[in-house]
Amino acid sequence: MPRRLLPLLAPLLAAAAANAGTPLGFHPASHEAQKPAEKAFLETPTPDQARRWLAALTEEPHVAGTPQEKRVADYVTERFREMGLETEVVRYDVFLNHPKSVSLKITAPFEESLALREEPYDVDKDSASLGMFPAFHGYGASGKAEGPVLYVNYGTREDFEALKGMGLSPEGRIVLVRYDKVFRGLKVKEAQERGARGVLIYSDPADDGYMKGDVYPDGPMRPPSAIQRGSVQFLSLGPGDPTTPGIPSRAGAKRIPREKLDTIPKIPSLPISYAQAEKILRRLGGPRVPDAWQGGLPFAYHAGPGGASVSMDVQMTEGLFPIYDVFARIPGASEPDRWVILGNHRDAWTHGAVDPNSGTAAMLETARGLAAALKTGWRPRRTILLASWDGEEYGLLGSTEWAEDHAEALKNAVAYVNLDAAVTGQDLDAGGVPSLLAVFREVAGEIADPRKGESVLAAWDRRAQADWAKEAPVELGAPDRPFEPRLRALGSGSDYTAFLDHLGVPSLDFTFRGPYGVYHSVYDNLRWMEKYGDPGFAYHAAAARLFGLLAMRLSSADVVPLRYGAYAGTLRQDLDDLRRRAIRLRRTPPPDPLDKPAIQADFTAVLAALDDFEAAGREADEEADRAARTASDTARVNEALLAVERAFLSPEGLPRRSWFRHVLAAPGTTTGYAPWPFPGLTQAIEDRDAKLFEAESRKVVTALGDAARILRGSKVE
Amino acid sequence: MPRRLLPLLAPLLAAAAANAGTPLGFHPASHEAQKPAEKAFLETPTPDQARRWLAALTEEPHVAGTPQEKRVADYVTERFREMGLETEVVRYDVFLNHPKSVSLKITAPFEESLALREEPYDVDKDSASLGMFPAFHGYGASGKAEGPVLYVNYGTREDFEALKGMGLSPEGRIVLVRYDKVFRGLKVKEAQERGARGVLIYSDPADDGYMKGDVYPDGPMRPPSAIQRGSVQFLSLGPGDPTTPGIPSRAGAKRIPREKLDTIPKIPSLPISYAQAEKILRRLGGPRVPDAWQGGLPFAYHAGPGGASVSMDVQMTEGLFPIYDVFARIPGASEPDRWVILGNHRDAWTHGAVDPNSGTAAMLETARGLAAALKTGWRPRRTILLASWDGEEYGLLGSTEWAEDHAEALKNAVAYVNLDAAVTGQDLDAGGVPSLLAVFREVAGEIADPRKGESVLAAWDRRAQADWAKEAPVELGAPDRPFEPRLRALGSGSDYTAFLDHLGVPSLDFTFRGPYGVYHSVYDNLRWMEKYGDPGFAYHAAAARLFGLLAMRLSSADVVPLRYGAYAGTLRQDLDDLRRRAIRLRRTPPPDPLDKPAIQADFTAVLAALDDFEAAGREADEEADRAARTASDTARVNEALLAVERAFLSPEGLPRRSWFRHVLAAPGTTTGYAPWPFPGLTQAIEDRDAKLFEAESRKVVTALGDAARILRGSKVE
Repeated sequence: MPRRLLPLLAPLLAAAAANAGTPLGFHPASHEAQKPAEKAFLETPTPDQARRWLAALTEEPHVAGTPQEKRVADYVTERFREMGLETEVVRYDVFLNHPKSVSLKITAPFEESLALREEPYDVDKDSASLGMFPAFHGYGASGKAEGPVLYVNYGTREDFEALKGMGLSPEGRIVLVRYDKVFRGLKVKEAQERGARGVLIYSDPADDGYMKGDVYPDGPMRPPSAIQRGSVQFLSLGPGDPTTPGIPSRAGAKRIPREKLDTIPKIPSLPISYAQAEKILRRLGGPRVPDAWQGGLPFAYHAGPGGASVSMDVQMTEGLFPIYDVFARIPGASEPDRWVILGNHRDAWTHGAVDPNSGTAAMLETARGLAAALKTGWRPRRTILLASWDGEEYGLLGSTEWAEDHAEALKNAVAYVNLDAAVTGQDLDAGGVPSLLAVFREVAGEIADPRKGESVLAAWDRRAQADWAKEAPVELGAPDRPFEPRLRALGSGSDYTAFLDHLGVPSLDFTFRGPYGVYHSVYDNLRWMEKYGDPGFAYHAAAARLFGLLAMRLSSADVVPLRYGAYAGTLRQDLDDLRRRAIRLRRTPPPDPLDKPAIQADFTAVLAALDDFEAAGREADEEADRAARTASDTARVNEALLAVERAFLSPEGLPRRSWFRHVLAAPGTTTGYAPWPFPGLTQAIEDRDAKLFEAESRKVVTALGDAARILRGSKVE
Repeated sequence: MPRRLLPLLAPLLAAAAANAGTPLGFHPASHEAQKPAEKAFLETPTPDQARRWLAALTEEPHVAGTPQEKRVADYVTERFREMGLETEVVRYDVFLNHPKSVSLKITAPFEESLALREEPYDVDKDSASLGMFPAFHGYGASGKAEGPVLYVNYGTREDFEALKGMGLSPEGRIVLVRYDKVFRGLKVKEAQERGARGVLIYSDPADDGYMKGDVYPDGPMRPPSAIQRGSVQFLSLGPGDPTTPGIPSRAGAKRIPREKLDTIPKIPSLPISYAQAEKILRRLGGPRVPDAWQGGLPFAYHAGPGGASVSMDVQMTEGLFPIYDVFARIPGASEPDRWVILGNHRDAWTHGAVDPNSGTAAMLETARGLAAALKTGWRPRRTILLASWDGEEYGLLGSTEWAEDHAEALKNAVAYVNLDAAVTGQDLDAGGVPSLLAVFREVAGEIADPRKGESVLAAWDRRAQADWAKEAPVELGAPDRPFEPRLRALGSGSDYTAFLDHLGVPSLDFTFRGPYGVYHSVYDNLRWMEKYGDPGFAYHAAAARLFGLLAMRLSSADVVPLRYGAYAGTLRQDLDDLRRRAIRLRRTPPPDPLDKPAIQADFTAVLAALDDFEAAGREADEEADRAARTASDTARVNEALLAVERAFLSPEGLPRRSWFRHVLAAPGTTTGYAPWPFPGLTQAIEDRDAKLFEAESRKVVTALGDAARILRGSKVE
């Protein structure tokens, strides 16, 4: 632990010392009883076994809705059973698509077909998979489109606005954009709304190719022919089966017909490689692009039009396909209706050695470890569910349908812990609600970092503090505040979304990160993992330990380890960022993208509500610690702690996307992946809508007030 | 003028309105008398004549100390004479170098010679200049060096520290660095101090090549074979002839012998193109570089060593060469000892159509305009000097030697206005001391922007406000401060340096900027300017008008138009940046580059001194306006206003570089070009030296106090 960090973590360390090694929420006796089980659990996961699981899971590409993916579901089910765990498979019939035929060619200045498959390498058997679909987009529309190409950078709303500023319109054109910055579906949405005929999305070498490191097969980054597949659902409007928003896709569910769906594209789109994109880009005429639009290909980019036209023909098989969520259940001994859920998806665009099956391999090791713990006679107080989701890649289908299916039961959920791509390297990265920070830090502090002989927590703290020193804004008006460790806010793009944003279940997501340029390509396979991601598979084992120990603590503490004293502090950081953004918008004179003056946003009420919530959280934390120490009042305290996050749901949901109900957490409407903390306030500021700001501000104040009242209800009168 | 700007500029506009069109410092009658002369002046400069001057000036490459450059000096002298201006040529004999022979080759993995000349293009006669020196560095050392290559990004101090962090040392190696970020001489200095044998500096396409736009001859940016020549003097220690620091290089001056010079390199260095650098970089082994080190060549950069070795042989002719400063003088009618100096250098590394002869062409048009004004019978109150400097490219030789030669007389100087590369495009950019902001805005407000039919001031303000909205830090603790127009702080790299930093003469520097990638290459020639820089030459004419009208106002106002009310506000912005930097350093836990804890810097005394200086400045401004309006007390007020800037000089100079004496302005010791406002305080913070901070803080407080006292002396008691 770095020297300078010590004083800053003093309160946390003091709390730990006071408990003298007793984990958060545990009565010393309960912990004593659990110790042998934890030991058995922690000793079980091995790198070798993780590697074997990964090899088996990634033998074939296994896209949702295919027989291959059904085989992997069966494999996971069998493994859970073999371990002696109670197992369940839940099938949903969801609307999705597979490619029938796809083609793309340059039509001017001369004809040239563009490849929609990746190049095989001799050193990598999986790179030549014959069973693969050609490149396509999940939920990409069928259609033919032809026309001159326009290059629009990342295809964000700002990029299309800048294009307008250059006097150019996407209307009647094929839009070529690069991946990154925002969820790919939102790129297609912007292009479609502005009249484009079709969309090509390519991976620029500046973003995950040679400008970020050596390319596969000689390095971990994206080689010229690699293609990023992926869904083009309009994710920020709501995930899940687009035909059944808010309800589970059970047989007989009432569905929106295809032609009425407005959460998936109507114009065709295709993903392409930079080797192919270069053939178009190099020829484009029109104005030289703004500096920020320049990518890593070795020439000056132009926006078009002129210089190159293309024609695309995309034909999809659309319809209902079965997907399979696989569960292992460890019933709680005393509070079986309270669930701790560990989730990871299983479906992949290709072999998916990173995404998601590094997580599946880790989860199988977690399961094996928990099975070993059960053999010591241990039983969790609350139920642990291991969930292997299907259909995540299309739009978080398996998790969303199941969460919608169990909305009522999930009101008792303790926490949802997600693992998607578990390992691309060695650097722990974690996001989640602030109430899970304390237990996450505690557990991460007990997991050794394979590389450094220190805990994964210590390494995480050091990196986070270095980033903070470099990037966190400095306020001259007050003494500099010390570094405060935090979980990053969750946006979307993985299976925690329905749990947190729709149902208010405290959620957490973690991964071990490194240089990873083969995302959603055929090179995301076992060889990549063995050569670059985790050659010794030690981080797979570490991920399994972290995952499972979290579950053991969350499920078995006498007082659930949700702590609210630091929650407001983290929210205040996020609110400060939003306040800065609001001020910057006010500084910018019109004309701006919306040609409306930025609003004067008054944050006073929200800041006051945060103060009150903070005070209530601190008191509740003390009460929770007292209850655990004395083993008294635990039922009442648990009741309160488990109700807080759900108080942040607003019944009417967020502006123009009612499926999202959490007033403190959502993906950005224009980002998809990246979070908008205080999403209603952010929406109002971005929309320049003062009335909306007031309304959303009231919702936030109400939610924080409700949460504070609930926390105060945990106190002995 | 943008709508939002109006309220913010209210005080300035109010002052302007009060004077009802009378320029700053003028009594209405004086202005009335000057009006016909200003009209004659403004009507004289034409694009066509500017083009003709530029064609003549750039006929041949004209490096300082060559017969070609003597011919251009004679040409300028003749033109001044023809215009009827009093002309003087001042010769200095300065130490400099020219290349005798240079060669560079790859020695491993196989032998390959690398080109040190640029490729000619048929469309551009000047690109094939036979009279050109091969690529070399001004003040580059003679020597042979051979060894494995290490790539060290921009070669900044931070880059070399990062290299150390990667476990690599430059010792015994040839260091390859890219241009940009800091003055090139400081790259060689860092490499030399760390044991490198030789240095190659190349232009990366990410910095001014294809990643910034189309390349020459099809666009304004740097093509593959273009080479950036330039001086490798250790500029931040002091400019001028390195053998005569602080004294003029007159015949018989006492000189430091070559072997004792520590302000120019001892190891050989060469500039190379990216076409040549690619041959080395592509082969380098060793670790993949940090992301920020990746340039624009289409592969992942590695640091080396291993993969490529080179050998270089650099033989220079060193010795004393004559340089010629050419002056035109318009004697002042009533205060002839008070000089307003307009300066521009004339020597170029190649043809120099941009750098510097766009400035020379503009200055000749300014001279022609002033001659026309004189023909109306007008005489300036104070003396105007037009200075055509020689030897700038080697290290500001002509201006520095002359300033050192006239240090005593320059105590009466009103202002120094510099024009180096006057035009690379259409966007006005200006730096200078805050006391010149008001007159600069006034004059810029009267010069039409050729492109937009508005003043160059309005366009400048709009861009500045947009940048401020995007980049200026936001403080949440107080209401957001409005945008305040400012001149950027001056660092070094052009001829204002001796005037401002050594002698405390209020200085200003401006240019019209655009995309310009051919800096110091053979393509900086007439065709480039005609095709890309200023096809209509209208910005040359605008620059001439701005330059000359500034001189007319500065020289002839009853009360000199130096205003001090806004000076402290600008300094406070710069100090706030430094305070933020100090806090960031404190946030970063050791180990850091210096392995010393960052200091706790106390800015209280400096902030208080700024407040007092601000109050004194505001009072003095009122007094100056009153004096001008009533034509009374002007002598006493002028005396005070002219003494303020010199109060900022400290007799002992800056830490470890005593030639630099201004306590508020200097180039950074590790930047060379970029300014360090409050250079002593910055040095102490970067060095982690609390004692030095206290000492430098006292100097600043003293200087600001002296300035405030002088300003108060302008008041009627």
